[in-house]
Amino acid sequence: MERKLRIGIPKGSLQESTFAFFKKAGYEFRMSSGRSYHPTVDDPELEPLLIRPQEIPRYVEQGILDAGLTGKDWIEDNGADVEEVAEFVYSKATLNPIRVVLAAKNDSGINSVHDLEGKRIATEYVRLTERYLQRHGVHAQVEFSWGACEVKVPELADAIVVNTETGSSLRAHDLKIVDVLLVSTTRLIVNRAAWKDEWKRAKVENIAMLLQGALNAEQLVGLKMNVPKADLESITSLLPALRNPTVSPLADPNWVAIEIIVAENTVRDLLPRLKRAGAEGIVEYPLNKVIY
Amino acid sequence: MERKLRIGIPKGSLQESTFAFFKKAGYEFRMSSGRSYHPTVDDPELEPLLIRPQEIPRYVEQGILDAGLTGKDWIEDNGADVEEVAEFVYSKATLNPIRVVLAAKNDSGINSVHDLEGKRIATEYVRLTERYLQRHGVHAQVEFSWGACEVKVPELADAIVVNTETGSSLRAHDLKIVDVLLVSTTRLIVNRAAWKDEWKRAKVENIAMLLQGALNAEQLVGLKMNVPKADLESITSLLPALRNPTVSPLADPNWVAIEIIVAENTVRDLLPRLKRAGAEGIVEYPLNKVIY
Amino acid sequence: MERKLRIGIPKGSLQESTFAFFKKAGYEFRMSSGRSYHPTVDDPELEPLLIRPQEIPRYVEQGILDAGLTGKDWIEDNGADVEEVAEFVYSKATLNPIRVVLAAKNDSGINSVHDLEGKRIATEYVRLTERYLQRHGVHAQVEFSWGACEVKVPELADAIVVNTETGSSLRAHDLKIVDVLLVSTTRLIVNRAAWKDEWKRAKVENIAMLLQGALNAEQLVGLKMNVPKADLESITSLLPALRNPTVSPLADPNWVAIEIIVAENTVRDLLPRLKRAGAEGIVEYPLNKVIY
Amino acid sequence: MERKLRIGIPKGSLQESTFAFFKKAGYEFRMSSGRSYHPTVDDPELEPLLIRPQEIPRYVEQGILDAGLTGKDWIEDNGADVEEVAEFVYSKATLNPIRVVLAAKNDSGINSVHDLEGKRIATEYVRLTERYLQRHGVHAQVEFSWGACEVKVPELADAIVVNTETGSSLRAHDLKIVDVLLVSTTRLIVNRAAWKDEWKRAKVENIAMLLQGALNAEQLVGLKMNVPKADLESITSLLPALRNPTVSPLADPNWVAIEIIVAENTVRDLLPRLKRAGAEGIVEYPLNKVIY
Amino acid sequence: MERKLRIGIPKGSLQESTFAFFKKAGYEFRMSSGRSYHPTVDDPELEPLLIRPQEIPRYVEQGILDAGLTGKDWIEDNGADVEEVAEFVYSKATLNPIRVVLAAKNDSGINSVHDLEGKRIATEYVRLTERYLQRHGVHAQVEFSWGACEVKVPELADAIVVNTETGSSLRAHDLKIVDVLLVSTTRLIVNRAAWKDEWKRAKVENIAMLLQGALNAEQLVGLKMNVPKADLESITSLLPALRNPTVSPLADPNWVAIEIIVAENTVRDLLPRLKRAGAEGIVEYPLNKVIY
Amino acid sequence: MERKLRIGIPKGSLQESTFAFFKKAGYEFRMSSGRSYHPTVDDPELEPLLIRPQEIPRYVEQGILDAGLTGKDWIEDNGADVEEVAEFVYSKATLNPIRVVLAAKNDSGINSVHDLEGKRIATEYVRLTERYLQRHGVHAQVEFSWGACEVKVPELADAIVVNTETGSSLRAHDLKIVDVLLVSTTRLIVNRAAWKDEWKRAKVENIAMLLQGALNAEQLVGLKMNVPKADLESITSLLPALRNPTVSPLADPNWVAIEIIVAENTVRDLLPRLKRAGAEGIVEYPLNKVIY
Repeated sequence: MERKLRIGIPKGSLQESTFAFFKKAGYEFRMSSGRSYHPTVDDPELEPLLIRPQEIPRYVEQGILDAGLTGKDWIEDNGADVEEVAEFVYSKATLNPIRVVLAAKNDSGINSVHDLEGKRIATEYVRLTERYLQRHGVHAQVEFSWGACEVKVPELADAIVVNTETGSSLRAHDLKIVDVLLVSTTRLIVNRAAWKDEWKRAKVENIAMLLQGALNAEQLVGLKMNVPKADLESITSLLPALRNPTVSPLADPNWVAIEIIVAENTVRDLLPRLKRAGAEGIVEYPLNKVIY
Repeated sequence: MERKLRIGIPKGSLQESTFAFFKKAGYEFRMSSGRSYHPTVDDPELEPLLIRPQEIPRYVEQGILDAGLTGKDWIEDNGADVEEVAEFVYSKATLNPIRVVLAAKNDSGINSVHDLEGKRIATEYVRLTERYLQRHGVHAQVEFSWGACEVKVPELADAIVVNTETGSSLRAHDLKIVDVLLVSTTRLIVNRAAWKDEWKRAKVENIAMLLQGALNAEQLVGLKMNVPKADLESITSLLPALRNPTVSPLADPNWVAIEIIVAENTVRDLLPRLKRAGAEGIVEYPLNKVIY
Repeated sequence: MERKLRIGIPKGSLQESTFAFFKKAGYEFRMSSGRSYHPTVDDPELEPLLIRPQEIPRYVEQGILDAGLTGKDWIEDNGADVEEVAEFVYSKATLNPIRVVLAAKNDSGINSVHDLEGKRIATEYVRLTERYLQRHGVHAQVEFSWGACEVKVPELADAIVVNTETGSSLRAHDLKIVDVLLVSTTRLIVNRAAWKDEWKRAKVENIAMLLQGALNAEQLVGLKMNVPKADLESITSLLPALRNPTVSPLADPNWVAIEIIVAENTVRDLLPRLKRAGAEGIVEYPLNKVIY
Repeated sequence: MERKLRIGIPKGSLQESTFAFFKKAGYEFRMSSGRSYHPTVDDPELEPLLIRPQEIPRYVEQGILDAGLTGKDWIEDNGADVEEVAEFVYSKATLNPIRVVLAAKNDSGINSVHDLEGKRIATEYVRLTERYLQRHGVHAQVEFSWGACEVKVPELADAIVVNTETGSSLRAHDLKIVDVLLVSTTRLIVNRAAWKDEWKRAKVENIAMLLQGALNAEQLVGLKMNVPKADLESITSLLPALRNPTVSPLADPNWVAIEIIVAENTVRDLLPRLKRAGAEGIVEYPLNKVIY
Repeated sequence: MERKLRIGIPKGSLQESTFAFFKKAGYEFRMSSGRSYHPTVDDPELEPLLIRPQEIPRYVEQGILDAGLTGKDWIEDNGADVEEVAEFVYSKATLNPIRVVLAAKNDSGINSVHDLEGKRIATEYVRLTERYLQRHGVHAQVEFSWGACEVKVPELADAIVVNTETGSSLRAHDLKIVDVLLVSTTRLIVNRAAWKDEWKRAKVENIAMLLQGALNAEQLVGLKMNVPKADLESITSLLPALRNPTVSPLADPNWVAIEIIVAENTVRDLLPRLKRAGAEGIVEYPLNKVIY
Repeated sequence: MERKLRIGIPKGSLQESTFAFFKKAGYEFRMSSGRSYHPTVDDPELEPLLIRPQEIPRYVEQGILDAGLTGKDWIEDNGADVEEVAEFVYSKATLNPIRVVLAAKNDSGINSVHDLEGKRIATEYVRLTERYLQRHGVHAQVEFSWGACEVKVPELADAIVVNTETGSSLRAHDLKIVDVLLVSTTRLIVNRAAWKDEWKRAKVENIAMLLQGALNAEQLVGLKMNVPKADLESITSLLPALRNPTVSPLADPNWVAIEIIVAENTVRDLLPRLKRAGAEGIVEYPLNKVIY
């Protein structure tokens, strides 16, 4: 009998980038129709469900899902007792992790959590905020906010607890960050019982390895170049120490070919130096996955 | 000093039709920029705020807003103690009122509220649902649902409480309506203290009159026709009894002009009859507002 | 028991303007979902079906539909034996009727139907074209064209038979009109048996009257003005003779109010003249329907 | 032989609203194809050309165009010697006229034209700005700016001369208005020689009258109501003094019908008062044109 | 003199994916303007024409085209006598081939071709359907359908013959597949005389090879990894037997580099196994073309 | 202290392809908000400004910018004294360079610059055109054109000087090219003083090298294949002589692996030949950058 891993995929603004992320890892999801929340996937051992990231920790904890991809912020807000198998940094706009912050108007007198005594706070993170206040011994009214919180200050709330990636929405609403409650990244979580099931655990570990391999590849590129044997040492000394390069012989015995994987964001400094040090025919090529 | 009425406008799917509705009533709202939640309006006595309809009852009750437009469903869910000044029927798609319903899979055994004992219900209307279950002496787990509820049955919930206008989303998910908790229309609500302030009350009453006048006009048209005096009685007998027609003399003493306001949806039956009864030069024209 | 008239609505490029046309006449169609070909309508006596205009004549002739709206071109191409109840001139772009034309390259030697002997003609109107050739005693190969014909000349066909409204697509492909086979307008057609059914006939006649009333109104406007009694005759002499104006007394006994329905495209000449002849407070207002 | 008036229509952001404006006046323009700058119009006596508003004054002055619609700002910048026949206030966003302003950063020391000595100014209005500086005896470098000026301060220019309708772009770039060089509205201009031609002058005057009639109608509505004869005087005293209402007898001798044209933005105050004063069946209807 | 191969490209829903397919093969098509049906291509030896896939077999058979890309379904429907040079599986949505099926309502009594006697069938495949019925000795009325067939059952037709890729449109219309007439893929076809021309045949064979190479590459990826010499045998035994891997020496004599081309859909199973077997620095990279 | 290079990026139609070009080179630009003209970039040593290409030469010459990317046409029109560091050929539509041409109606008598004496010329390139006329001793009126010039001939101008890439806009307006004033490509320009600053010069040279590397890679691909040692010479003789291939030993001593970088547009001829000459497992893969 075929086994299935039931996995929660975060519905909403991260949905498309999550599908793209899985595609790079080798799993192709497809919406079977406009309304459906059961995407199809080309792996018969997976049963994906599109669910709001806020709810995934709850359903994984309860065992309704075996596993799920969601943010650390919602795991914490739910206080969910789940296994965190892997951490990924990816988002729509940047590679910055999400921060859950306490924010207030720039010109308000609120400069720390202690200035919130007796105030009203609007947030989607009601439980996270209440625990935060409790830890600091502050009493304030925490109201669940259905829509964007930024607009509510100061008329409808004194402060807010929201997530932010670049801070641009806060700046646009003349808000300052008073405190950071949490730095959040995406996590692959698993139900505690499912984690003890050998088949499910192996399945989740494979998914984690392939997702990580795809994420690595986004920030890495391959480099090949031809190098005079005489310059080999000086040129390899320029290369990042992370991994040894592959050195292959060439037809011309005075030259060798070097191949190495490097971080993409080092290339623009590295290439001019390699060229000046005598490397020739330097070629950069793209990668799909890298597994160390 | 200029006085202001602070009024909540429902943000979200009804926003554009609400703006259009107010425009017909004579108030022109404009988004001052993409991010802003403070639309401008060409009446200096109004200070509008765009707020989720779920939250408007709470803010009106607390006096943070003087008045607001929102659904009866959210007034009830909040259990808000506010003055309901007027009721309007308008929506994106139809003139049907919204119904808040209990729904379950067609092939589930759930046929009444009493079949919910011990089940799990997903809803955005947590408080409304809890009071409903309590009234019927049923104990069930009510979970707040961040996203669309329809998809959650039967895997993540046994039943749902959702609003529906045409029922098409329920049908598309193979769900049946088990019970109707509430029939909801849009209401103009006012804070109890504001309602006792003479200026605010007059301001709210004027807005209600103009909104109602615009809504009337959407379903009415003006008719003019020339009628032989000899046929006047037989023709007027065809007209709806609602209001007396305006009858004006014409240059030709054997003819008179009749003018009347009628419901638009009666016109397609009325016009052929009027024509056959002898009316000539029948003209239908559009209306902006009608105040009885 | 409720009776129903089954009516074919032309699916495709004219669909939206046909819906808008019926809406002006007082019938509101709505697509019940993206895929559906059974629009809903707010008249329980109508059962509309969205069908390609090419096929409507055939289905009306066979009695599968009681009535339908389609072009004269397709009635002729089908050679359908149906009752034509009304003719309407409306389209996406202009008020020009559609012409079905024989076209060839500007620099081809084809200047009349007689130059087609032995040639190849691409067309969607296979039967219409074959009858046309037969009438002129010309033998040519007529090929059904799945896609746009204009592109096929001269490589894939020597000449084409296509419909055209403004001729712009022909000009863009360097084609000339060699002959006009048919001038086509939209027709309301009825099955011969249905036309003999009293209820169906009355229903169709009402629809025709209201559609015609809406179409009239698009090209007419209402005018009102105040006129010194002394100038009444000279001013009324400027008005189109079509219908007598409504003349009403005013409070000031030296003035009267005149009201009249005129063609919109005469207004820009008429208004300056009326103003110069002494009319005051000239007001033009829009109309929904006009039934003479 | 048919005569033609060659008229320049402002190409660009105002194009669609200009077409809509002419359509209300009774002239329907149509782009004959995507690329064309010769729109068609349903008046054979008009030959329209789509031209940038900056260039229309020059071409009208030179007689290449007989007439044109353009802004006062560009007439002044060109220093064009033309006849201004009519002035219209309309735009994409608001009814505010355009202002051509001198602007600088909020925190710059530039507070009047005299602070510009030796500075660099970026503008599309090079000639207007140079004359303005000359009038104030200030010497500064005026540079033609191809793109948006707002971004250039302070890195690429010390101050700018730009047009603004709502000031929102200036605010968004942290700029203050230092001085207003010109308040600009749309003008209908005519070549001096064409203005002396009787046919052309009459044609232009008719166009001006109809455009003005359409513009009037946008800000006016018709009101009808039934009034007890006893309250006639008190009710008419509420009406704007601008024009006498049309008072018509009704079948019931104790009531009369009143009809009047009023400014749309007075209606929301007027209607509640009329209703309270005893008017019944108050109906507001839209207008196409109003010519006093 | 330069020779040309005139090739038909399927116009319509497959057009963009066909252009993308050729681009991967090394031929860049460009629409020279919106209306044109003569795309340009960066190979002077090709003369492409955009033609409906239904018509390509006819024109290739007649020699108006030398070659063309079209579906097996239309080759069969035309009964065209052409040379089929290559078969490709690609489409907009999936890698499934197209099936031409006979379909009827789920609740109809039609369960095999023999239930069609005397019925009405709507289809775009008139000839294919007639031959199919004839083969089974069934007499039925086959009607050409201009628009979508699915909607016609049961009111306008008893059954339909349509193509389907995923079956979703059939399911959405509550239709079942009664029989499969044909499984269709895309074919590169050549005119019989052109196939005997040496230059044209070589040209077509090259195109076929490059298209196939591009299609191969879409489903393959390159893998590189470093492997301890001691584990080489056990690791290579995990690799697909299809082709021998390239094994290269490395600087460290205890390690070798392995490079191999594998099917992309095997990677997600293969990578975890390779890693566990001792491979390091596993890199997957994308391919443009693969020619065995 | 961190140094910065202030660089002008051409705002407008080339903006997106310029951003994409820099991204391939390793620099990621991001618009920080809709209005901003200061994109962010992931290199802290760069300070980019979005400026119209027409103005970049002026600002680089004046030292307001250190460097900029713009067209040779605008460098010439400005007569700017700047250092041209690199030349790139890329554009929205094709790899054709831009030409600045003198154009006139096909049927005008204008066939050379000498036919322009006393005529009126509309252009965005006023200075370039005036110098061109002066060189040829021709006197004509050169008028700055705010909008598209093509439409102005012959009514508003006798000839125009415009840039063109494919000539399609000229053909569409029935214009012929009379003379070519300039063939223009994109240049990386540097202020003369900045070029003497060692840090800025190295920074600019690195940018130029990486941009060139990315541009090279767009037109190149990598090829790998396995070759019998016996055929090695005959196969390498088929390869472009540009660079020596990398030849690596394989496990099977009778075969070697060849790897080479070739121009993408040679591949469709090369691959069939290689295959026929005995190469196996031919793989083409994409490249990010190539630096010779």
